[in-house]
Amino acid sequence: MCRFLAYLGEPIFLTDVVCAPAHSLVHQSMHADEGKTPTNGDGFGLGWYGEREEPGLYREIRPAWSDENLRSLCAQVRSRLFFAHVRASTGTSTTRANCHPFGLGRHMFMHNGQVGDYQRIKRRIEEMIPDHLYDHRQGTGDTEAIFLAALAEGLEADSIGAMARTLGRIQALMDQAGTRQPLRFAAAHSDGGTMTCYRWSSDANPPSLYWRQSGANVLVVSEPVDERHAGWQPIARNHALIARPGEAVMVVPFEIA
Amino acid sequence: MCRFLAYLGEPIFLTDVVCAPAHSLVHQSMHADEGKTPTNGDGFGLGWYGEREEPGLYREIRPAWSDENLRSLCAQVRSRLFFAHVRASTGTSTTRANCHPFGLGRHMFMHNGQVGDYQRIKRRIEEMIPDHLYDHRQGTGDTEAIFLAALAEGLEADSIGAMARTLGRIQALMDQAGTRQPLRFAAAHSDGGTMTCYRWSSDANPPSLYWRQSGANVLVVSEPVDERHAGWQPIARNHALIARPGEAVMVVPFEIA
Amino acid sequence: MCRFLAYLGEPIFLTDVVCAPAHSLVHQSMHADEGKTPTNGDGFGLGWYGEREEPGLYREIRPAWSDENLRSLCAQVRSRLFFAHVRASTGTSTTRANCHPFGLGRHMFMHNGQVGDYQRIKRRIEEMIPDHLYDHRQGTGDTEAIFLAALAEGLEADSIGAMARTLGRIQALMDQAGTRQPLRFAAAHSDGGTMTCYRWSSDANPPSLYWRQSGANVLVVSEPVDERHAGWQPIARNHALIARPGEAVMVVPFEIA
Amino acid sequence: MCRFLAYLGEPIFLTDVVCAPAHSLVHQSMHADEGKTPTNGDGFGLGWYGEREEPGLYREIRPAWSDENLRSLCAQVRSRLFFAHVRASTGTSTTRANCHPFGLGRHMFMHNGQVGDYQRIKRRIEEMIPDHLYDHRQGTGDTEAIFLAALAEGLEADSIGAMARTLGRIQALMDQAGTRQPLRFAAAHSDGGTMTCYRWSSDANPPSLYWRQSGANVLVVSEPVDERHAGWQPIARNHALIARPGEAVMVVPFEIA
Repeated sequence: MCRFLAYLGEPIFLTDVVCAPAHSLVHQSMHADEGKTPTNGDGFGLGWYGEREEPGLYREIRPAWSDENLRSLCAQVRSRLFFAHVRASTGTSTTRANCHPFGLGRHMFMHNGQVGDYQRIKRRIEEMIPDHLYDHRQGTGDTEAIFLAALAEGLEADSIGAMARTLGRIQALMDQAGTRQPLRFAAAHSDGGTMTCYRWSSDANPPSLYWRQSGANVLVVSEPVDERHAGWQPIARNHALIARPGEAVMVVPFEIA
Repeated sequence: MCRFLAYLGEPIFLTDVVCAPAHSLVHQSMHADEGKTPTNGDGFGLGWYGEREEPGLYREIRPAWSDENLRSLCAQVRSRLFFAHVRASTGTSTTRANCHPFGLGRHMFMHNGQVGDYQRIKRRIEEMIPDHLYDHRQGTGDTEAIFLAALAEGLEADSIGAMARTLGRIQALMDQAGTRQPLRFAAAHSDGGTMTCYRWSSDANPPSLYWRQSGANVLVVSEPVDERHAGWQPIARNHALIARPGEAVMVVPFEIA
Repeated sequence: MCRFLAYLGEPIFLTDVVCAPAHSLVHQSMHADEGKTPTNGDGFGLGWYGEREEPGLYREIRPAWSDENLRSLCAQVRSRLFFAHVRASTGTSTTRANCHPFGLGRHMFMHNGQVGDYQRIKRRIEEMIPDHLYDHRQGTGDTEAIFLAALAEGLEADSIGAMARTLGRIQALMDQAGTRQPLRFAAAHSDGGTMTCYRWSSDANPPSLYWRQSGANVLVVSEPVDERHAGWQPIARNHALIARPGEAVMVVPFEIA
Repeated sequence: MCRFLAYLGEPIFLTDVVCAPAHSLVHQSMHADEGKTPTNGDGFGLGWYGEREEPGLYREIRPAWSDENLRSLCAQVRSRLFFAHVRASTGTSTTRANCHPFGLGRHMFMHNGQVGDYQRIKRRIEEMIPDHLYDHRQGTGDTEAIFLAALAEGLEADSIGAMARTLGRIQALMDQAGTRQPLRFAAAHSDGGTMTCYRWSSDANPPSLYWRQSGANVLVVSEPVDERHAGWQPIARNHALIARPGEAVMVVPFEIA
């Protein structure tokens, strides 16, 4: 299990949500409340959109809580759309290439969850990735594989439908492999314009995911960053949130196809 | 606060106490029970005596729980006298040079505790280190400074007396600086022959320190590594344990000079 | 291109060949003479057989020239059979999981060379790895894939034949992909008993590989470690060297199948 | 010896001089032409002024040539005043805390050169740092010590005079210690407004330092980044360059006091 946050709105300094609040994401790297473990110390990452079409990425294998570069970067960078993630590995190596968010072109993706018996079906999931996208695989984890598979399913044009089909195919692979473990999925995708956050689980226990709106600013988090102050609402199980600048936030049903 | 262990006895694989037990030191890197925090993820280190007079050292900034090299090394290396340490920084940088144990010639030293208001008297402590030893300072932390100062006080010939004088001088510096914070000190020193472990505190709360003897084997730990099985006894506050091959373990009063 | 060495013989300290000589492997990490580039600073690794069936592994992403742990480990560890490798990446990430040597069970493998257009046929090479071995893939590079594919071809029982078949299949994949780039291969494998070193190239320019025997000790190197002193001889192109304790070294023709 | 660059002018993406040119600073990390060694692989750093008074800092121990974060950051960050540095250690540890540039409040400083027999007078140099600044020392190298000592000498108000006095005192310490080695100094300081670059040597061989002006943009480099194209001129030995937005660049004599 990992912890993450995703922001879309007026440009703000990343530190305002990543480092500064009482229960900031950096605080959650050592003291998460709602994850499987309090410690999320197996690397971290930032992704943010600035002046370029492609997002900036800073991913590192140290724990977030002691990374001076992370603090400095969050103090300097102001962005209208960014992701941050602290990682608790479920087995894959602690390498930068396995840290979230993952980027490809103008797309970026991060994830918290589990693919039941991933090791047994890893190969089948990778087969969902066409050659031209497989060339971009740099790590070995499930999230990057899901991201590349979803791009192949049309994530660019239809972030809800493509992800539903991708998870549907993964669930089918899990069924074929006879796993009894669940597929649990909290994730965020952006193309630099739209931010889509997903919460889905094959059982009754999806990873936690909350959101809050303040004016035009939308923040989605694994755990509230400021100790349950008013305004946080859970994204319901098997729903997705879609946010675009200047439009009303939509929370829509999200079922796998 | 940190967690450590020190072993003297029949040569054993390091993994037998560092990695394998239910509450091994590696387990304590994420789930310590008796330290200030459960997480000791700011680097770690091993020091062991083999065929050479100087100990081997492996120190790394990653958390111990995910370090493949640590696991492999502990599975391969067999030693009659070794130290292992997982670090929870109290402010100094997470660099290899600040990880324990520290080595100089045939000596090695590690520590868990606090020097009240260290930042304010850091410089005064460093002044206790003569030039020829100051050249060996590679980090910036309190432990390395205490180690070098104690060597100057005669640690080589008198591990108890030299450390008592060193702590006495540090306490005096703290008094001069007017700090109200305590000096707390659990530590281990070896010259490759004798192993000396100290437990001292200026207040009633010294860091935890236990020991157990099995035949000729002596193990000293911040926390029992196997869940309170029989045989562990605390080293009493303001006492030191001295172990030498083929001799009875001594636990003696240890007061600062 | 990378640089490596492999040793079989009387137990010696690793430092005797890895660190101490004038043109030691650590020296080659910054000043290689015969590789494509003088710098091999994209990580390094050690693998050695000790008391256990499985080798010890120490792999790290820093350059070898500044790694204190490497120096200390090489000074302490004495082994009858060990590999050491300094890496110059040809594109894959600098992660521990991509550093050589690779280990699986009692086997270990390292490599210097190139698979022409690897990115284009990476996937086809990975398909050569059966599921039960694919589970052990932790990195993303060509060497680990070749190692796992060769294990599937029977490396355990027949280190020459299995590697010949593996390279034959890879060459066929390259041909199918229409690449004009060569397949060049200098490598070493061991199961803890036998050491096999290969030198092969589809063109006239295989990576450099030398060997020297001193009594019962055999050392195979990408570059002589002591500045061309007497005794080094190249392993001829498309040949392999086989060394076993107490037996005469054999250099045999090695052609892909 | 190290390599660096410093820029003041219209806001540009860092990549335009750090990564993109044929002989960019990243290229110099492996292939420097005018330094003592071609390899500057012992860490690197960026410092840039953005919307805050304090500069952003990104310092890392990996070689610059393989750091994905560096490339991404340089592609995203646009700045009117920034420093970049690739490090070749002359003995101190490869830690982030020893990487340039160093920052304190709104000041930032980096350096390429040598203090003859630094180890022998390290302590004397540190004594030049008053307590309130010594608290900020996080590393162990000469550059950070010079920076803090220069701040104590009044770097904030008089970047030329304070540095002249600081070097004068260091030269005196070297003389007292009887060293025959030179003091060589190429460095850059900024407070976020002015950029001051120094070139000085006690012998005839100061570290290389060039500058070029294009309109309002001033670039100072250890080595020209674009292969000797027109416009680069050396800063003469024992001179300093002072650049401020909207003012003519000044190159003035710089002698130690």
